[in-house]
Amino acid sequence: MSRLVFTLATLLKFGTSEPTENPPKTPRINPLESEKHKMAKRKPKYVYFFGGGKSEGKAAMKELLGGKGANLAEMSSLGLPVPAGFTITTETCDAYYKLGRKYPSELAPQIDRNIRKLESLTGKTFGKGANPLLVSVRSGAAVSMPGMMDTVLNLGLNDVTIKTMIENSGNERFVWDSYRRFMQMFGDVVLDIEHHDFETALDKVKLARKVENDTDLDTEGLRDVVKAYKNVYKKAKKSFPQDARAQLQLSVNAVFSSWNNARAIKYRQLNDIRGLLGTAVNVQEMVFGNMGNDCGTGVAFTRNPATGINKFYGEFLMNAQGEDVVAGIRTPEPISQLRKYDAKCYKQLLAIRSKLEKHYRDMQDVEFTIEKGTLFMLQTRSGKRTAAAAVKVAIDMMKEGLITEKEAICRVDPKSLDQLLHPQFDTKAEKTADIFATGLPASPGAATGQIVFSAHKAEEWNDMGLPVILVRTETSPEDIGGMDAAKGFLTAKGGMTSHAAVVARGMGKCCVAGAGQCNIDYKKKTLTVGKTVLKEGDWISINGSLGTVYAGKLPTVSPTLTGPFNQIMKLADKHRVLGVRTNTDTPADTAVAVRFGAEGIGLTRTEHMFFEGDRIISMRKMILAEDQTGRKAALKTLLPLQRKDFIGIFKALKGRPATIRFLDPPLHEFVPHDKAGQAEMAKAMGVSPKVIKDKVDSLHEFNPMLGHRGCRLGIYYPSITEMQARAVVEAAYAVPGAKAEIMIPLVGNVGELANQKQIVLDVIAQVKAEMARKGKKKAPPIKIGTMIEVPRGALTADEIAKEAEFFSFGTNDLTQMGCGFSRDDSGRFLKRYVELGIYDNDPFQTLDRGGVGQLISIAVEKGRKTRPDIKLGICGEHGGDPNSIEFCHNVGLDYVSCSPYRVPVARLAAAQAQINNPRKKKAVKKSKKK
Amino acid sequence: MSRLVFTLATLLKFGTSEPTENPPKTPRINPLESEKHKMAKRKPKYVYFFGGGKSEGKAAMKELLGGKGANLAEMSSLGLPVPAGFTITTETCDAYYKLGRKYPSELAPQIDRNIRKLESLTGKTFGKGANPLLVSVRSGAAVSMPGMMDTVLNLGLNDVTIKTMIENSGNERFVWDSYRRFMQMFGDVVLDIEHHDFETALDKVKLARKVENDTDLDTEGLRDVVKAYKNVYKKAKKSFPQDARAQLQLSVNAVFSSWNNARAIKYRQLNDIRGLLGTAVNVQEMVFGNMGNDCGTGVAFTRNPATGINKFYGEFLMNAQGEDVVAGIRTPEPISQLRKYDAKCYKQLLAIRSKLEKHYRDMQDVEFTIEKGTLFMLQTRSGKRTAAAAVKVAIDMMKEGLITEKEAICRVDPKSLDQLLHPQFDTKAEKTADIFATGLPASPGAATGQIVFSAHKAEEWNDMGLPVILVRTETSPEDIGGMDAAKGFLTAKGGMTSHAAVVARGMGKCCVAGAGQCNIDYKKKTLTVGKTVLKEGDWISINGSLGTVYAGKLPTVSPTLTGPFNQIMKLADKHRVLGVRTNTDTPADTAVAVRFGAEGIGLTRTEHMFFEGDRIISMRKMILAEDQTGRKAALKTLLPLQRKDFIGIFKALKGRPATIRFLDPPLHEFVPHDKAGQAEMAKAMGVSPKVIKDKVDSLHEFNPMLGHRGCRLGIYYPSITEMQARAVVEAAYAVPGAKAEIMIPLVGNVGELANQKQIVLDVIAQVKAEMARKGKKKAPPIKIGTMIEVPRGALTADEIAKEAEFFSFGTNDLTQMGCGFSRDDSGRFLKRYVELGIYDNDPFQTLDRGGVGQLISIAVEKGRKTRPDIKLGICGEHGGDPNSIEFCHNVGLDYVSCSPYRVPVARLAAAQAQINNPRKKKAVKKSKKK
Repeated sequence: MSRLVFTLATLLKFGTSEPTENPPKTPRINPLESEKHKMAKRKPKYVYFFGGGKSEGKAAMKELLGGKGANLAEMSSLGLPVPAGFTITTETCDAYYKLGRKYPSELAPQIDRNIRKLESLTGKTFGKGANPLLVSVRSGAAVSMPGMMDTVLNLGLNDVTIKTMIENSGNERFVWDSYRRFMQMFGDVVLDIEHHDFETALDKVKLARKVENDTDLDTEGLRDVVKAYKNVYKKAKKSFPQDARAQLQLSVNAVFSSWNNARAIKYRQLNDIRGLLGTAVNVQEMVFGNMGNDCGTGVAFTRNPATGINKFYGEFLMNAQGEDVVAGIRTPEPISQLRKYDAKCYKQLLAIRSKLEKHYRDMQDVEFTIEKGTLFMLQTRSGKRTAAAAVKVAIDMMKEGLITEKEAICRVDPKSLDQLLHPQFDTKAEKTADIFATGLPASPGAATGQIVFSAHKAEEWNDMGLPVILVRTETSPEDIGGMDAAKGFLTAKGGMTSHAAVVARGMGKCCVAGAGQCNIDYKKKTLTVGKTVLKEGDWISINGSLGTVYAGKLPTVSPTLTGPFNQIMKLADKHRVLGVRTNTDTPADTAVAVRFGAEGIGLTRTEHMFFEGDRIISMRKMILAEDQTGRKAALKTLLPLQRKDFIGIFKALKGRPATIRFLDPPLHEFVPHDKAGQAEMAKAMGVSPKVIKDKVDSLHEFNPMLGHRGCRLGIYYPSITEMQARAVVEAAYAVPGAKAEIMIPLVGNVGELANQKQIVLDVIAQVKAEMARKGKKKAPPIKIGTMIEVPRGALTADEIAKEAEFFSFGTNDLTQMGCGFSRDDSGRFLKRYVELGIYDNDPFQTLDRGGVGQLISIAVEKGRKTRPDIKLGICGEHGGDPNSIEFCHNVGLDYVSCSPYRVPVARLAAAQAQINNPRKKKAVKKSKKK
Repeated sequence: MSRLVFTLATLLKFGTSEPTENPPKTPRINPLESEKHKMAKRKPKYVYFFGGGKSEGKAAMKELLGGKGANLAEMSSLGLPVPAGFTITTETCDAYYKLGRKYPSELAPQIDRNIRKLESLTGKTFGKGANPLLVSVRSGAAVSMPGMMDTVLNLGLNDVTIKTMIENSGNERFVWDSYRRFMQMFGDVVLDIEHHDFETALDKVKLARKVENDTDLDTEGLRDVVKAYKNVYKKAKKSFPQDARAQLQLSVNAVFSSWNNARAIKYRQLNDIRGLLGTAVNVQEMVFGNMGNDCGTGVAFTRNPATGINKFYGEFLMNAQGEDVVAGIRTPEPISQLRKYDAKCYKQLLAIRSKLEKHYRDMQDVEFTIEKGTLFMLQTRSGKRTAAAAVKVAIDMMKEGLITEKEAICRVDPKSLDQLLHPQFDTKAEKTADIFATGLPASPGAATGQIVFSAHKAEEWNDMGLPVILVRTETSPEDIGGMDAAKGFLTAKGGMTSHAAVVARGMGKCCVAGAGQCNIDYKKKTLTVGKTVLKEGDWISINGSLGTVYAGKLPTVSPTLTGPFNQIMKLADKHRVLGVRTNTDTPADTAVAVRFGAEGIGLTRTEHMFFEGDRIISMRKMILAEDQTGRKAALKTLLPLQRKDFIGIFKALKGRPATIRFLDPPLHEFVPHDKAGQAEMAKAMGVSPKVIKDKVDSLHEFNPMLGHRGCRLGIYYPSITEMQARAVVEAAYAVPGAKAEIMIPLVGNVGELANQKQIVLDVIAQVKAEMARKGKKKAPPIKIGTMIEVPRGALTADEIAKEAEFFSFGTNDLTQMGCGFSRDDSGRFLKRYVELGIYDNDPFQTLDRGGVGQLISIAVEKGRKTRPDIKLGICGEHGGDPNSIEFCHNVGLDYVSCSPYRVPVARLAAAQAQINNPRKKKAVKKSKKK
């Protein structure tokens, strides 16, 4: 819909959830019930006034007044220059829908009363009289949904008031411009007239007047536009109401209706926004930045939102309205330049910056307008920021004494740290690479991918697993799905506060904006700079920290953790009681994880080691073996290789413990399922292809997830367990300080663990005897434990703990079996489930506390009852998800384990969990670091 | 091994568990620990004496003395004529294995002491002297394992004692015969000399002497045999010990070793015998039934074991040993004829029969020997019986005042009732059919199947799903696997107590034995009677109640429940508190179930209705539909058909409730997966085969068990739920008194049920309005509930109960997900699991109380907490398994539901559960029967 109503301020709010707050606890109860509850308690007050240094609302009333309304009230109470107005509550929106798109009878008189109050405060009359009051009507939910809902400006103009306005302002062109803008916005937003029809009418006038830009139209031209617009209304059989109160009522309807437009619903789903009552409506006296050169408008952040540096940061345009900055026709100037145009207002703005930060104790982003030398604040809210900025702002504010250590820790969204950990371009390679284009460093980081020119294509290719860079002249809210799918964005137009830049920072993706040399042809699907033409699908690399663009792929390196990031991690470690380990299968990954702060390995998947190189041949020989003798011969060739793997991992860990899981996947994963592969395997094995095919067929399972895998393999083929145990034990002897923890997978019955444990114990005894003969008397510490990933395992944890020295919760499988969802198959209907609110989140991403969480709680309680010192951890992918980590903390686990790049995320999330729900520290024994 | 040692008595003990006892509660704790416990408490007494009207043991000491030993002790104490002896305990066997096949030092002196006691009581000297004492050495565990372990008879004979024996007995032939038997048995059983070598040696002597049968050999011949046997020992480099004490020690070793021979291990697995310490060894003075015409041997049941009729029943042979009866050379005579040969002994036997029944309060089977006019009892134990006999004996004994009503109920193994419910031949068809052969009505019932001539083939064909009749000249313990696989047995030789007959009655299979006209050629694989030749694979029908055999297939009919069976069912209904419903999908099956006492339907699988005839076309159209319109059109054609199904079922139920489960299986089950089928479907749908193939491919799932099925279908395609709801509601309106219970499958989250429930409620309201317009004002009662079959569903039962009026536990899926076992894939490794004792039973057959049972307990408790009057049942296949039914009773369910033929089983099992663990009756509301 109308891009014109997409103001800078709303643009800047774009992104996912508020980074400076903990994720909102969406109420688990039926929203209908929670509302009933609230409605019953409070009298039906639907409208809250603000202005004149007073307010009926305050910042804490976000749920009721929306973020915008609550902060306007707060600023007003603080004595900041806020145009007066009133907020119609979110409860009204809720009631509107409940009553079948009708209003409670109390609403109209309350609005009337507040209009009278506003008239009295401003000395103006609403939509008429000698000094007509014009208002803006803006949406504003408790959680920002920028550009998703409707806004109407300049409301109150009509054929009569424009005359008065012209007289009063002495600026006829401005008034006609405002009128035509209002008519278009109203027709488009409120009366559903095709936006296109207005554009066509406007173009005709421009053509007739031989001007190129809207701004080139003079008073006469704008008057023609108004005339033409009236015809558009007529053709659409809609009437433009001259009565301001009618204009207002229809606009309020439109805003409330826009709460449930398709775009808004989709946005809430995408951003996991739930449990809200609806949007509020803010009706506020209009102030104009476009009445002349003593007017202007701008947006600013109290600190740099990309780097966090404590410096006022923003852009402004003189004689302009918000949308002019976005339109990209005039280039906004840096905020520091404002002092040249209006030193008084600039000084006042600096004071407000300081006051707001002290008041809100957080970095703010603000929107302001200067009307004839008077500064007005139109918005404030906590500013979206990159992860780097969030970290720096938190550390700085703590040092400045604005916030406490604990608050600093809680100010950073753990998930966002991901951004800081992702690879950067290799400096050497980047230095020698040819720069293809340069633009603004709009959102830091590096990205390499294939060029796509549309959001649609970005989604499509991403679904196929291709990394894509979205290349657009500029981006708009409609592109949001494709932006989510892309690794990064390159735009030819737009500044540091353009849509692409803001979204990129919010999403933690890298972005180069406003690369003006880039010539983009959507039809031909080409990106041209000079004579170089790149096509759709070509590779490109962009550096959002430098603003540089390269044709082709650039190699990347891991980032280093220094400065504020290092500081916040140290704070997190100081506070958390939950240990953090990592899931790795190679010495290289292990080294990365240790650098990121991993205190050991929580999961090494030994089967990954069987795929590498020639090993798969031995593995297949093992599978093909007719008897134990053949199997043992094949396993004998795997033993030294596996031992070498473990030695490498133990060395990388430098004395930290490693939990090693024995063979888990069904054997059919190791054999080829296609004819060619089977023929090749037959050749390598020296048998006929029929033998291979028969074997592969015999390994087929209807539900392999619930089939012959995990410890069921080791029980059926004890020689596999023997080999793996020997590899671990011999490796542990070979590396001084090695701490091995052998983990038996898929245990649902203590008998399974007892069976496998005995084999391991026998091997330990054998190796010990062999080593003693060689003079190695000191045995390495080896623990034996199990995965808890079968519901039955959790339910019988008391029995299993008799044999297990540790449990590691395999929450992936526990979710599959506990909820009955095949991970490979449930994608389609799980999406629908989340849409319908049956599950709050995809249970494979965020741990299902209600079901899977119960199994974990039961197992923790029963396990500790049998063996009070049992070590408890989690190694499912939930171990890297902050919400799930909070659960692990609350339920009393000793550690979480996650992928190397998630380790810092987990450290921070664990600290936040401890701050929000303190637990005694004694449960955790941190491993000694060297 | 040696068939000669397979006595009549052991033969008659053959079968599964004891029918007159509840299944033994096998200790769940580690057997090693339980033993330690016992060993610590008791002094090491390894040998128990019996004889002379006194005993150190008694019947209750089965676990320690084995069944045989305990009852010999008991009979001895009762003053019955039992040859004196002593029992070496099962604990000794256990100690023997624990000490690495060595004995505790206390054993040898204890044996010596008991031999002296025996010598003193009998006035004989063991293996020497003027009156040599000969003994038998027999195995005997707490649970009968006939023919599985070793036995040695005539022990104490040597080159010296035979001379004394000849002198004393004046029967040289008898002594030589005993000696050669002993030598063969000892060589075979104790010294592991090839049985074949003895046979060859014997055959050579027979050939030289030109005789056909062993019995035709005269004294000289037998002397030659002994000589030849000595050569066999020499060739095998084994020495035959002349010292009786050495013979005894080696024999005891052999018996204890036989506890763990492959056959015995297999037998224990097959019969689910666990937790035993080992076998006892019974050493008993030999008595001989083959010393002359004033000698004899026989077996008898105190009542008829096939019919239960209260009449002494058995067979005997004069001048014979037990194995002579089996050998089939001489035909045994009915027990009533004994009075002709030895009236005194016969009278004495009748008195013993009466005394034993009164003492044991159960039908007994006994083994006896008459030595020179003196009766000796060699064994007594509760007699195996057919289900019909078990029922009749229980009812009769109750009427006779021998046992109480509750005892009568507990005397019948619920599982065995199955036998009484299986089809009989249609009387008309049988009357007009030509009888192919006749034999003894050895085990009642009717069976039709394809002829196989070997146990091996029987197993092989059964695995392929073919019904087989095992046809053998005679059967032997080695055939046990094939007998288990066959529907029935036909033998050419053997009487009512032959191996085949006894096994058949124990297994509840039908058997025609000793059909002498049958000529069986194993090589040619033919069964010939006169000129008719039947080949392997030909169909045959046998009637075990009449002893008739027919070539070809005969039609069968359902049995009627009358007489004692009806009486025991009435008693069961009087006592049980657990309701019994049935799982049926058709009116016909429903009618059968109602006749068997079903109180309603616990599960109707609606998907079965979609496969029939043309319906599959509509179903496939529905699946192929691109949008809701197409889907609804296809569903519209299914609606009247499904409604008709429900009307039929409601009518058959006559006012009893029906739980109707909505569509459950994944849609791919409704489409063809082969090329030809897809081509056909394409033709029927009027689309290209590619469209069908693509659709089928798109429906593919990696783990369909955990995929898009159950309520996930109805949530994704609400129109399916709408159609099914409408069919149920309209059908309920159409049948007066109909009680519908709509069941939503696979609910793991209350949101799923809420979603589907709303659709159903909407349909109910719609139909109600439509019916009201037609003047039908009285709405039928319709309940809405859910399956609990996902672990998460059980764990969140408190939430789900907010929406559900009833729960039905789907224990098949609950086992799959709770234990992580795919039913289709786990067969292979689950078998190993049961062998290893990780699970006591296949958890798909007997409910896994430790895991799945916990989920049920949790759900019951939570469900009732939310909704105290929630109705709770089970509809998994466990609902027909007595052990699982006991659990359902204990955990407080309202009813179980099972297949029609299992309904009587469930009624009886429920009564037994109540008797063993009384529960208040109020929980059950029995449905009104008309």
